[in-house]
Amino acid sequence: MPKRLAYLGPAGTFSEGAAIKYAPQAELIPCLSISAVAEAVSNGRADEAVVPIENSLEGSVNDTLDMLIHQPSLFIRGELVLPVQHCLLVRDGMNISDIEIIYSHPQALAQCRRYLETHFPDVVTDAALSTAAAAKYVLETEEPAGAIGPIRAAELYTLDVLAHGIQDNPNNVTRFAVLAHSDQRPTGNDKTSLCFSFTDDRPGLLYGVMKGFAERGINLAKIESRPTGESLGTYIFLIDLDGHKEDAPIKEALQHLAEQASWFRIFGSYPRYRRIS
Amino acid sequence: MPKRLAYLGPAGTFSEGAAIKYAPQAELIPCLSISAVAEAVSNGRADEAVVPIENSLEGSVNDTLDMLIHQPSLFIRGELVLPVQHCLLVRDGMNISDIEIIYSHPQALAQCRRYLETHFPDVVTDAALSTAAAAKYVLETEEPAGAIGPIRAAELYTLDVLAHGIQDNPNNVTRFAVLAHSDQRPTGNDKTSLCFSFTDDRPGLLYGVMKGFAERGINLAKIESRPTGESLGTYIFLIDLDGHKEDAPIKEALQHLAEQASWFRIFGSYPRYRRIS
Repeated sequence: MPKRLAYLGPAGTFSEGAAIKYAPQAELIPCLSISAVAEAVSNGRADEAVVPIENSLEGSVNDTLDMLIHQPSLFIRGELVLPVQHCLLVRDGMNISDIEIIYSHPQALAQCRRYLETHFPDVVTDAALSTAAAAKYVLETEEPAGAIGPIRAAELYTLDVLAHGIQDNPNNVTRFAVLAHSDQRPTGNDKTSLCFSFTDDRPGLLYGVMKGFAERGINLAKIESRPTGESLGTYIFLIDLDGHKEDAPIKEALQHLAEQASWFRIFGSYPRYRRIS
Repeated sequence: MPKRLAYLGPAGTFSEGAAIKYAPQAELIPCLSISAVAEAVSNGRADEAVVPIENSLEGSVNDTLDMLIHQPSLFIRGELVLPVQHCLLVRDGMNISDIEIIYSHPQALAQCRRYLETHFPDVVTDAALSTAAAAKYVLETEEPAGAIGPIRAAELYTLDVLAHGIQDNPNNVTRFAVLAHSDQRPTGNDKTSLCFSFTDDRPGLLYGVMKGFAERGINLAKIESRPTGESLGTYIFLIDLDGHKEDAPIKEALQHLAEQASWFRIFGSYPRYRRIS
């Protein structure tokens, strides 16, 4: 039976591209929100899920971080890094000079801002709920409209591609996390993601935790904070570190963390992504 | 001449409420994006600006952080903390049972999720570009629609308020920053906001900076990271600390920071907000 893989839909989004790259044979289950994706795995409708976690221009995907914090039954068992390639899409037969309005997800519009200012200084832009929703709308409307989205959306909605790679920054990549009911055994080139918080607000608490990692030579690849939702200024900290939770120095540092933090949770240890290009 | 104060418009948003609270006599200049707000101050069209910087449920406002990082001529000279009170708004004469669709900004819909599930389980929700845009749309459409937004939007668009305080979390507050061409002198109860980055990626660099603050007993109220936009995994760190940049221990720690980081910038020192209720 093929693996059932949930992702942030609809079909034609970058998340679908990541899901196909991760498991080409999987049965894909599109879900309409990050929390619905998580729910699909925790209630058994899907075996695993692929969710965007960080973009090199926009930063962390907060919905995904908040979902990880609040879903104790899900673990990160892998990561993928995919380049974001935006295209300009129109209905069959339309030309660049016909376009009077361009739709896309606000992040995609932001990522193509310079291209739009240079090539379409007088064209209106408008927000859509996803790049796929913009593509679908452009197919169905009679407006002189274009959409910005991945090449996959052109295939799905039979649109013409007027321009490829229109994002301003060629280094635009998105990191996706693979979620499942367990993480992975050590491979020798791993990462570990975790979060923690403090009930007190004393100077130096966060510093104390970081000291526990620094003194053991453990590199922190990333540190992020998210609000606890209780009051302004109380945070949950999220850390990505180099290594596996079973490595001796990390095991020790995690014991130290358990003593320092009032609450902590390991999202998982998983192999670092190596780009195959 | 009254102060000219730029804010994230249109009229009827929570940002307008913050601007009025900060300077009731000011001439208000609504701008359509965070970068347009910043531009209004840097090109002299406004004297100061009020921008949202952090919400207790949603976390940092990334557009504002990125704008601060990239606008070296602007400083933070104050902060305000305002409770977010959402209302359910409809056209004159409509009742709760008439509503078939509810519009608002996605953050506002998210902040009222439990209220909507309980009171409107069968009603569709749809995203608008701002709470004010939702209110304006509801006034003009013939759809059986409601909007979620601040009480100010009801006044501006002459809508009826069917319910007050419908946000799920009573602790929902937003922190706003006041931007100008300079920050403020010490008052004895101040905060300092700054950012820094490293060109290298060696273990312990961030830890080294935090050590410089911890050893001098300086409390870090907040730590955040934003992507540099150059490649995945390279970050600009943003810190809020307790105290003024002219305080001796902070001056020392900032010298230490200048030696450790490859780049840093102080957004400003400003009086801590004290709620007047």
